[in-house]
Amino acid sequence: MPHIALDENLPGIAALFAYRPETAAPLGQLAEVLLRGPSSLSVGERELVGAVVSRRNDCTFCSRSHAAVAAEALEGGMPVVEAAWEDVDGAPVSAKMKALLHVALAVREGGKSVSEDLIAAARAEDATDVEIHDTVLIAAAFCMLNRYVDGLATLAPDDQDAYKGTGVRLLENGYTRL
Amino acid sequence: MPHIALDENLPGIAALFAYRPETAAPLGQLAEVLLRGPSSLSVGERELVGAVVSRRNDCTFCSRSHAAVAAEALEGGMPVVEAAWEDVDGAPVSAKMKALLHVALAVREGGKSVSEDLIAAARAEDATDVEIHDTVLIAAAFCMLNRYVDGLATLAPDDQDAYKGTGVRLLENGYTRL
Repeated sequence: MPHIALDENLPGIAALFAYRPETAAPLGQLAEVLLRGPSSLSVGERELVGAVVSRRNDCTFCSRSHAAVAAEALEGGMPVVEAAWEDVDGAPVSAKMKALLHVALAVREGGKSVSEDLIAAARAEDATDVEIHDTVLIAAAFCMLNRYVDGLATLAPDDQDAYKGTGVRLLENGYTRL
Repeated sequence: MPHIALDENLPGIAALFAYRPETAAPLGQLAEVLLRGPSSLSVGERELVGAVVSRRNDCTFCSRSHAAVAAEALEGGMPVVEAAWEDVDGAPVSAKMKALLHVALAVREGGKSVSEDLIAAARAEDATDVEIHDTVLIAAAFCMLNRYVDGLATLAPDDQDAYKGTGVRLLENGYTRL
């Protein structure tokens, strides 16, 4: 049961956005810029960063909902996400994405875990400054969102199929119409 | 040295806001709503949450800059912040703030560390749902900001006096004019 009085019909961050529209607005805009705005990383690649960080943070709602979007957006679908959850290096993604996912997982541990070596490895695969910047901020933003969603004990079904509709909708509509 | 090409004359998040104005806008708006918007928690109390979480996350730039704002805003000044950094329960703040700071420190560990007992303790000191919500989101937001600032290795002088001007300015101007 959620720690505060939220709409019982809404899961995860949907309940929090309905509860506090004042903070929902900038949070939705931040997600829109990072995950849908102009970028040399695809929508699927950026959603994958969110799904991988959220999974490692053990956040059911965020990992399953962003896995659903990534699965819709990535050519290989859900098996790509599941492979990345299991082991970044074994996932069928580009060498650049593997290096950026390692940067993201270091951010998850803490900002100071992002070593020169991890950055050099991403650069060796032609990651640009903006791609490194955005990967760090996407990973950091999910460290916020995961804590927000679980810190208030919002509802989250633990069944990937339950998030399929959310994935389709988020891919089509983005984050400013939640 | 920062991991990406940032303006060398700007420390911490100032350099990141200048580098990527598209993400600076919603981040500044989020901070403004949470730390300056209408609230039954004072500006000093909310900045203290940010300073305490940032300190525990070992983020020099965020802990020192938000300590500087809290010190300007709180009647007891910097000694209150230093006491809270040392030990929340020994700090000269209200019993409600102590309980909310414990919630914030649990959020820092991870969303699922926010136990029913910690929420019940805050309620026993008359914390409202909105105060609990905002404390959780402030703590979560600093978990993002700390990772963003340190994950890109931005510059941060480790001298509290160097942040005094920032504290005065942030208290007067807020976060949307950075």
